Amino acid sequence: MKKFAVILAGCGHKDGAEINEAVSLLLAIDQHQCEYQCFAPNRPQAEVIDHVAGVPEKNAERNIMTEAARIARGNILPIEQFKAEDYDALFFPGGFGAAKNLCDYAFKGAAMEVKPDVARAILEMHAAKKPIGAMCIAPVMLARLIPGVCVTLGAEGTPVTDEVRSWGANHVQTDHGDVCADNENLVFTTPAFMLDATLKDVYDGAFNMVEAVVDCLDGK
Amino acid sequence: MKKFAVILAGCGHKDGAEINEAVSLLLAIDQHQCEYQCFAPNRPQAEVIDHVAGVPEKNAERNIMTEAARIARGNILPIEQFKAEDYDALFFPGGFGAAKNLCDYAFKGAAMEVKPDVARAILEMHAAKKPIGAMCIAPVMLARLIPGVCVTLGAEGTPVTDEVRSWGANHVQTDHGDVCADNENLVFTTPAFMLDATLKDVYDGAFNMVEAVVDCLDGK
Repeated sequence: MKKFAVILAGCGHKDGAEINEAVSLLLAIDQHQCEYQCFAPNRPQAEVIDHVAGVPEKNAERNIMTEAARIARGNILPIEQFKAEDYDALFFPGGFGAAKNLCDYAFKGAAMEVKPDVARAILEMHAAKKPIGAMCIAPVMLARLIPGVCVTLGAEGTPVTDEVRSWGANHVQTDHGDVCADNENLVFTTPAFMLDATLKDVYDGAFNMVEAVVDCLDGK
Repeated sequence: MKKFAVILAGCGHKDGAEINEAVSLLLAIDQHQCEYQCFAPNRPQAEVIDHVAGVPEKNAERNIMTEAARIARGNILPIEQFKAEDYDALFFPGGFGAAKNLCDYAFKGAAMEVKPDVARAILEMHAAKKPIGAMCIAPVMLARLIPGVCVTLGAEGTPVTDEVRSWGANHVQTDHGDVCADNENLVFTTPAFMLDATLKDVYDGAFNMVEAVVDCLDGK
């Protein structure tokens, strides 16, 4: 049975992992008869956002891994324990947590850097020539780290597409449920909520991305 | 287009709505080309549980609706604004939040009561002869409020099955993905994580429950 690692960035799209994307991804993995293990950084979130008011909660502090455990039903490990040799593929759902906690794209745009603990996981997996999948905004991390990689961030002509090109990456426009497959770098991305999606669209993209990774591993 | 109300009890299975059940339910509604509106009580959670350690967080307070908004992407209304006349059906995902925040089953067992704001929504929907669906532990609220209703809470012979019978309700054993349909009371329940389920099982149950409610509304 194939075993996939999923890195979560908290719990809630404004300051953590986008919940619907994360669940769609985990569900799609289970539906493909594969196993998953969730990981997250065991450090404070960049922010805590009130998801009704849309503004930061004052004096609030939450831990990325502790919050991500809400999605993973407690079955989660600190990202330091991730080893590329233990997993067949690595996945990232999106949400602002990916852009605030796993890298600082939400704050620095084109000048962003991937957090060292997350970069280590991505680069180890890439060096091991194993597939990496990412949804929504999470592909910016792959575009920042993997020279010349091709990703999708949904529609063409948004600021983020210019930014990833400024790093030497390529961008392909996609529609709901589509997967951008970079078969050379083994990177598979889907737009999810980068487009004006509903949950069906997000799930379709997650399912198709997981299927593309499984087919890649099966040599199809 | 049919419009369904979904009542969420927070965000995270130990103190709020079970996230995978909630997303599976919302996804299944979207996949059936129906709309949903999420609601939650705008009051403090009974507890805040650290989902890694499994113990209460000291001095922590979170608001049920503010946390549930993480699942609903901010599109959520206080439960007081729910009117049975506006919706074709009412749904509840499970999780300990259902048993701690929407009623006090987790603390009082057979002596439990449904919180007045939640009981009002259920009883109005039932009086309007409109369908109600519930997953996992959430059916206990329907068993407490609707005389003689038939629900499932998964396996037979657990304490909860004796408790719902002590209130005059009926219990039917179900397996993964099954739906217990009480066509007289228009109550549709599925076991989800009351059984040792994986996400695929939970999604199948949510999908089948939504399909049973849609078929019921279509007179099938």
